[in-house]
Amino acid sequence: MSERQRARRPGGRSARVGAQVHQAVTELISERGYGNFTVGDVADRAGVADSSIYRRWGNMETLLTDVALTRLNTQSPMPDTGSLAGDLRTYAAQVAREITGPDGPAVLHLAVALSSSGQQGLQASDGLRAERTRQLQAMLDRARDRGEHALDAFDVLDHILAPMYIRVLFGMVPLTPDYIDGLVDRLL
Amino acid sequence: MSERQRARRPGGRSARVGAQVHQAVTELISERGYGNFTVGDVADRAGVADSSIYRRWGNMETLLTDVALTRLNTQSPMPDTGSLAGDLRTYAAQVAREITGPDGPAVLHLAVALSSSGQQGLQASDGLRAERTRQLQAMLDRARDRGEHALDAFDVLDHILAPMYIRVLFGMVPLTPDYIDGLVDRLL
Repeated sequence: MSERQRARRPGGRSARVGAQVHQAVTELISERGYGNFTVGDVADRAGVADSSIYRRWGNMETLLTDVALTRLNTQSPMPDTGSLAGDLRTYAAQVAREITGPDGPAVLHLAVALSSSGQQGLQASDGLRAERTRQLQAMLDRARDRGEHALDAFDVLDHILAPMYIRVLFGMVPLTPDYIDGLVDRLL
Repeated sequence: MSERQRARRPGGRSARVGAQVHQAVTELISERGYGNFTVGDVADRAGVADSSIYRRWGNMETLLTDVALTRLNTQSPMPDTGSLAGDLRTYAAQVAREITGPDGPAVLHLAVALSSSGQQGLQASDGLRAERTRQLQAMLDRARDRGEHALDAFDVLDHILAPMYIRVLFGMVPLTPDYIDGLVDRLL
């Protein structure tokens, strides 16, 4: 069985290592900020060998991007409530919970830092954006197929995600349920 | 004449020193990023004494906030075109030009960094937000007094500024005139 196949099997040793490494990165990002720790620091914190990290992620940028992707995307799976308003309200509330949670602002700062850290960072954040856009668009396409309003993923970025991101980045929290629903209502 | 009065007289020695120091900070922010230079570095670059900087700004946070304020606000005075649509389109285009200009992304990253750098940074960015909000609200109040649509400064933050800020922070540029006008049209 190859390393890649093992990495895909949930619940195994590889999944445990993955979770430990993600947790270590999230803690180090919160404590020290982007650019202020090494692969060795992550390995020490996670209790794994440096070589395990290099074998699985290749380099720090890829690891950081994987963490940012997982925190900003996979932990907030796209809802499927049967209505566009329901989907968007649920999705917006999930994102708000994530970015205002204990590690949320640090992960958001990481995403911004990855976007401005030169070529490799740009590619990494392009991947982050592409994945989020694909997931979002699939949800919006289901609504369009049901005969509801046809929205573009960029409309959601501009008028639901961007306001919440900026308010968290500028420390204008909390994001209240009324505020979040108001963003959705205005877009629809 | 006190130092404060002198600082207010445009075109004098104090104004020249102010411009030199602002330019030095903007260059250092672009080159090294927030947190990676000292008051001494700024003084060397600007060709002034450290003591001139401490006398006028007190500390680095206040100086950085002054630079961010000036770049994101004063250089983009509020338009007064006679219509809300005209004002918002002109204002949005000014902000877009500023944040996509040579030092724009660096100044935007500075504003984000000041918001997350602890108590002093938070206070500084509160001041930045309060000033921008006051200027914006005055423009919106003129429109309301003419009998046009009544908007809140936070509507403009959420639906015009935040989308542009996030697109610049995530490297999704350029901001085209069609895109900018589209943000204004959707808000109105």
